[in-house]
Amino acid sequence: MALFLKNIDLSEAREIIKNECSNIKLKVEYIDTREALGRVTAEPIFSKISSPHFIASAMDGIATKFIYTLDADINRPVLLKNGQYEVVDTGDPIPEGFDCVIMVEDIQTTDEGVIIRKPAHPYQNIRPVGEDIPMGAMIIPSNHKIRAIDIASLLAGGVNKVPVFEKVRVGIIPTGDELVDVGTMPKRGELIDFNSWTFAALVKEWGGEPIRYDIVKDDFEKIKKVAQRALEECHIVIVNAGSAKGRGDFAEDILSILGELKFHGVSIKPGRPASFSMAEGKAIFGVPGYPVSAYFVMENIVKVGFDTVLKAKTEEKRVVEAILTKKINSSLKNDEFVRVKLGKVKDKLIASPIGRGAGVTMSLTTADGVLVIDKNKEGLEAGEKVSVRLLRDIKDVDSTLVCIGSHDVVLDIISDMMNKRGFNLNSTHVGSMGGIMALKRGETHIAPVHLLDEKGEYNTSYLKRYLGDFALLKFIKRVQGFMVQKGNPLNIKGFKDLKRVRFVNRQKGSGTRMLLDYHLNKLSINVKEINGYEREEITHLNVAAQIASGSADCGLGVLSAAQFMGLEFIPVCFEEYDIAITRDMLYDERFKCFLEVVKSEEFKNKLYEIGGYEINSLDIIY
Amino acid sequence: MALFLKNIDLSEAREIIKNECSNIKLKVEYIDTREALGRVTAEPIFSKISSPHFIASAMDGIATKFIYTLDADINRPVLLKNGQYEVVDTGDPIPEGFDCVIMVEDIQTTDEGVIIRKPAHPYQNIRPVGEDIPMGAMIIPSNHKIRAIDIASLLAGGVNKVPVFEKVRVGIIPTGDELVDVGTMPKRGELIDFNSWTFAALVKEWGGEPIRYDIVKDDFEKIKKVAQRALEECHIVIVNAGSAKGRGDFAEDILSILGELKFHGVSIKPGRPASFSMAEGKAIFGVPGYPVSAYFVMENIVKVGFDTVLKAKTEEKRVVEAILTKKINSSLKNDEFVRVKLGKVKDKLIASPIGRGAGVTMSLTTADGVLVIDKNKEGLEAGEKVSVRLLRDIKDVDSTLVCIGSHDVVLDIISDMMNKRGFNLNSTHVGSMGGIMALKRGETHIAPVHLLDEKGEYNTSYLKRYLGDFALLKFIKRVQGFMVQKGNPLNIKGFKDLKRVRFVNRQKGSGTRMLLDYHLNKLSINVKEINGYEREEITHLNVAAQIASGSADCGLGVLSAAQFMGLEFIPVCFEEYDIAITRDMLYDERFKCFLEVVKSEEFKNKLYEIGGYEINSLDIIY
Repeated sequence: MALFLKNIDLSEAREIIKNECSNIKLKVEYIDTREALGRVTAEPIFSKISSPHFIASAMDGIATKFIYTLDADINRPVLLKNGQYEVVDTGDPIPEGFDCVIMVEDIQTTDEGVIIRKPAHPYQNIRPVGEDIPMGAMIIPSNHKIRAIDIASLLAGGVNKVPVFEKVRVGIIPTGDELVDVGTMPKRGELIDFNSWTFAALVKEWGGEPIRYDIVKDDFEKIKKVAQRALEECHIVIVNAGSAKGRGDFAEDILSILGELKFHGVSIKPGRPASFSMAEGKAIFGVPGYPVSAYFVMENIVKVGFDTVLKAKTEEKRVVEAILTKKINSSLKNDEFVRVKLGKVKDKLIASPIGRGAGVTMSLTTADGVLVIDKNKEGLEAGEKVSVRLLRDIKDVDSTLVCIGSHDVVLDIISDMMNKRGFNLNSTHVGSMGGIMALKRGETHIAPVHLLDEKGEYNTSYLKRYLGDFALLKFIKRVQGFMVQKGNPLNIKGFKDLKRVRFVNRQKGSGTRMLLDYHLNKLSINVKEINGYEREEITHLNVAAQIASGSADCGLGVLSAAQFMGLEFIPVCFEEYDIAITRDMLYDERFKCFLEVVKSEEFKNKLYEIGGYEINSLDIIY
Repeated sequence: MALFLKNIDLSEAREIIKNECSNIKLKVEYIDTREALGRVTAEPIFSKISSPHFIASAMDGIATKFIYTLDADINRPVLLKNGQYEVVDTGDPIPEGFDCVIMVEDIQTTDEGVIIRKPAHPYQNIRPVGEDIPMGAMIIPSNHKIRAIDIASLLAGGVNKVPVFEKVRVGIIPTGDELVDVGTMPKRGELIDFNSWTFAALVKEWGGEPIRYDIVKDDFEKIKKVAQRALEECHIVIVNAGSAKGRGDFAEDILSILGELKFHGVSIKPGRPASFSMAEGKAIFGVPGYPVSAYFVMENIVKVGFDTVLKAKTEEKRVVEAILTKKINSSLKNDEFVRVKLGKVKDKLIASPIGRGAGVTMSLTTADGVLVIDKNKEGLEAGEKVSVRLLRDIKDVDSTLVCIGSHDVVLDIISDMMNKRGFNLNSTHVGSMGGIMALKRGETHIAPVHLLDEKGEYNTSYLKRYLGDFALLKFIKRVQGFMVQKGNPLNIKGFKDLKRVRFVNRQKGSGTRMLLDYHLNKLSINVKEINGYEREEITHLNVAAQIASGSADCGLGVLSAAQFMGLEFIPVCFEEYDIAITRDMLYDERFKCFLEVVKSEEFKNKLYEIGGYEINSLDIIY
């Protein structure tokens, strides 16, 4: 095996890719200009005709000779007779012998001819030949991505066919014994292959042509065979999954056998196990299997190769400045990509870090952007100014009501209803106490809370203690209860029964956990007596999912979550789930939209449909 | 005819369009998630399965029970025997009965089993069910444009089909007796219909489906018939051209007859004659024929209707702050759109206004962005901070060498060669003196000049007088001469002959005009004796185009321009065409690239091919 580089810096990896991929040549094809949107020019394009190609009128009016008009004056009108003028519209050619145009507003038509009261000067209101585009002028240079406005200039300049580079073909090979096709219900241990389709969509976004190959089992010879075919058919080949160290990891070997391995391992996180080699003059990338790692390797590594082959810059994601809401630690080994949510709170753009695990696909969908912690930094401090690469339109961020606190499925319903009204609700689930703290730090607009105090009262005492100045929307009452398997096989009826089952809990600071603690305390049950008290999930749905899968027997949560997962539900109590808010937000457009939604008939009907909820007074108390 | 609004504000026009178009309904279709990139969701999408749908290992290593490991310590290794553990890879299901995973780096494999030296805790390195996406979680809301990263979450959540809105169909009807199809060589008075294809490309950029109808003559009944068909087939219909006042202008009538005209005339410039009506529950827009007016009406008026129908925000062009280089006057009547070129000069982003005529298509292709002068302002001052909506990637602007001054076709060649090296050359043609002034005001990086002084010397005396501190690249010598019809029918041999022909001149401040003045002065010819001395064009090619079209007999210019237009050329002299530059730019990457290009063999060969040029010393003098 030839020498290759291990665990190199991202900048070094990019340089290697640029150097190698600049040798991959694309064919030139001549295509119809009308179909050329988004394609990249292979040569500079010069106009073939002048536009306009004749002297034309720039106005509606009459064409005449300026010498006929020299004596005209407001007090001394001049009559132009037949033959001395001709009626022209904008764009009409100037009839032979005439040298100026008088606009329709400046003439008076009579039976004998037209009367003018102002002299004209030569070439007045005349568009010279080539005013728009002279013949032989360069319209666009080579390596230029053709936009709609370029098509106008090209066609006006008589360029009906343009030489463009063929599309960059990217072969995508999903590998792994555990992978099953989309549309198949995965069995235990199986995984739907969604990476390859995501890669294909990314390649389309870049303007390339993805070619996806069928899933290949973890069999060295088979992968090699498909890769060889892909190398013949494509400019760039991606071997997906199996690029970490482990039993079924062939990517490094494949990349070495097929061609010359240039590097394996790049100091980014997620995305470390990326690899790159050149084979038969084509590029092969080994991309890790974890979806989030895969995404960052695609956007930061494979795209460099794609752009180099295309010889054009594909659009970069826009970068904005924001204030970081909480401290992030980072190792000195890697450039780390952190997904963040953004929100505009009092004119400040606020970035809140979310899930950093490499397997949490949803975090990319819900994230508003990504920030990078340089490998030379040990982390970032709360309040630090950071640069965030946007994953969605900044306008969406401006119209977003940020919601940090306790989770409930009604937030999803409100989110959708606000969306239809042109606003967004961006909710992060950190539990009730987390929400109050976010409100205090100015990181959120609203915080859903359900906090039971020692006296058995909800929310107000906590808000007074931690916030001082606040408002509280008395929102909904919801039933909490035990979620158990259908038929309640372990016969769980109360908190005492938790001592003999496998429990799954919510995270510290969540209202549901505090509800549990309140009841355990009243019943003098020690938390150590409960198997799974330390096992934490961060939403009702996640708790329900653990029970549905059989890895736990019981959890505390809301009816809707139990129903979604097909579980049985044993009610424990109704609790008050309210919305805490700072007073200055009460007049904010986004919060007004939230209020409009929760007061609507449609919302009431939806709550009724789900079951387990009552609408509270919807009063705002201070 | 019903009442309609005339010459309303853009904001009012937008409100009317939003209200009316919100009633246009799109059908919902269920499509394969893998093909859903760029489509807009018609409903919120919830996950159908949990991902992962089983408890899985988050690491390569062994699965075991945490209780087996409690006694392990660095000094007191524990041996796990067969049956007490199982080897697992990342993503593998956790075998029944086990509750934690120890990573491969922390175990030592022996013949009897594996040795560990650290206790594990429950659920360590285990991905719980639904960690990624719990079943029933909302993945994306309604009215959401699906991105590549959303496809990952959707497929992982078992959503194989998504309900999306059908594409918005936009019918485009080009009208006008003067229009001919692309591919036809236009006769005198005819115009290639490029607007309709540009509109189609814009609709594609927005994510819609354009339907272009054949060109319709200026015949009321015919236009009406096609429009009625389009109303049946599309959600939005565009009637192009004929929306200004004039003989062939049916748009207002058509819009009134087919439906209810809502407004005609919007106070924007270019773009005033836009109109809008509703017919059979569909939207019809009258869009003016001038290409630049048409573009601004499409982007600022029609797109509002498109977005409203789609119920999703299509991407907005990005806005940057820049310093305006010269004063712009504007009428108080209209919001005025001004096309600008951008350049980074000493860390400042500089915006230079270009052509404001509504007919200059190329100005949109060459512009970097657009600024808006509010109708309540009489104009903008030089040095004022302005917001510019980008027409190209800001990265392109950063790598652009700004060139303002005298025009020569070699600049197009250099531009293309720089482009291949990852840089851009953005040249504006304002003549030599204009270039020197731009350099003085810090608005350009380089200024091409060819200025002959009274002593018959080139460039240096002007630079000393106007700039003080400067550098000058002795660039090329080029032949200047008279451009005349093939065969030189008027037998033009010298400057004296200009008195008896129709001349076409260059603009004041251009080196070519100063060359003319130098010679006329030496020969004591009065400029009044020359017919066409006042007729100005701003490039060599434009002058050549006037002669080629027969509207003038002779002009002064360079050989290459004459050759492009198939004219005869009578040499007058060789002149020194140099590049003026400020000293601090000498070490700039962009200027270095310029130098590299002009010193290359390839450039020399190209100059030789064109003819009429000699390379000067390429020395830089101070």
